[in-house]
Amino acid sequence: MEREGGGKERFEMRRLEISDKSKGFIELLQQLSVCDSVSDEGFKERFEEINKNGENHMIYVIEDEEKKKIIATGCLFIEKKFLRNCGKVGHIEDIVVDSEARGLKLGQKVVEFLSEKARSIGCYKVILDCDEKNVGFYEKCGFQQKGIEMALYF
Amino acid sequence: MEREGGGKERFEMRRLEISDKSKGFIELLQQLSVCDSVSDEGFKERFEEINKNGENHMIYVIEDEEKKKIIATGCLFIEKKFLRNCGKVGHIEDIVVDSEARGLKLGQKVVEFLSEKARSIGCYKVILDCDEKNVGFYEKCGFQQKGIEMALYF
Repeated sequence: MEREGGGKERFEMRRLEISDKSKGFIELLQQLSVCDSVSDEGFKERFEEINKNGENHMIYVIEDEEKKKIIATGCLFIEKKFLRNCGKVGHIEDIVVDSEARGLKLGQKVVEFLSEKARSIGCYKVILDCDEKNVGFYEKCGFQQKGIEMALYF
Repeated sequence: MEREGGGKERFEMRRLEISDKSKGFIELLQQLSVCDSVSDEGFKERFEEINKNGENHMIYVIEDEEKKKIIATGCLFIEKKFLRNCGKVGHIEDIVVDSEARGLKLGQKVVEFLSEKARSIGCYKVILDCDEKNVGFYEKCGFQQKGIEMALYF
């Protein structure tokens, strides 16, 4: 991994913190899908709901520490099944890289980090859904096409 | 809905109970994917882990009450997001109908029940992954093709 001056990496993965709301976390999500501004109270409530699941629901971010800005994120949650001998499946969701931070392979870094996390927790597989146009990217991250995502919107 | 003699329906959806292990629940899952026999202790432990999530992770079954046998099942878990204004997404998993109970539209009953559950909990959508060959079935349940499922097996 590239290091700057032998010190801390510029782009490190860490778990989402409550202060990340003021570092553009919501604005980053808006690059992926519909996300109006969230109140501080609403953010805190959802943050705590997710956090109390511990390792079963984790949101990771990369902060550009020079700009104090969240520039990439991804989420992993763990589904506990009876199938596969009471196996666990990792679900990756909401991968976004800031449009101004493309070309740094941060997307791949996030996906590979979350996949490794799922493996280390004992999942027998990790899955995600993506647009047709992103299949090649996820293949580079080691994934294979598996099935079709179906959705019903209310 | 069809009723028999005006009494209780023969095929009602209810949540998984710990006693369903002795009613063929694991054998039913084996019709979907790899699932070796699970010990009573292992079953109880996983059952309790899932159950403590309350409405956020629910496994439903249909029992043939004459045969005292579980003949259909499906699972719904709720993912809490920041996206979509702190929205919630329902994930449907592990839909199985006993091969001896085909033709009764139990699969559709399970999927529609879980979708309605997700809607009533306030999800903005419900999603699932399926094989190409099952796309038509899920379209009949109101779903549309959305994206590609990618998987990485460990």
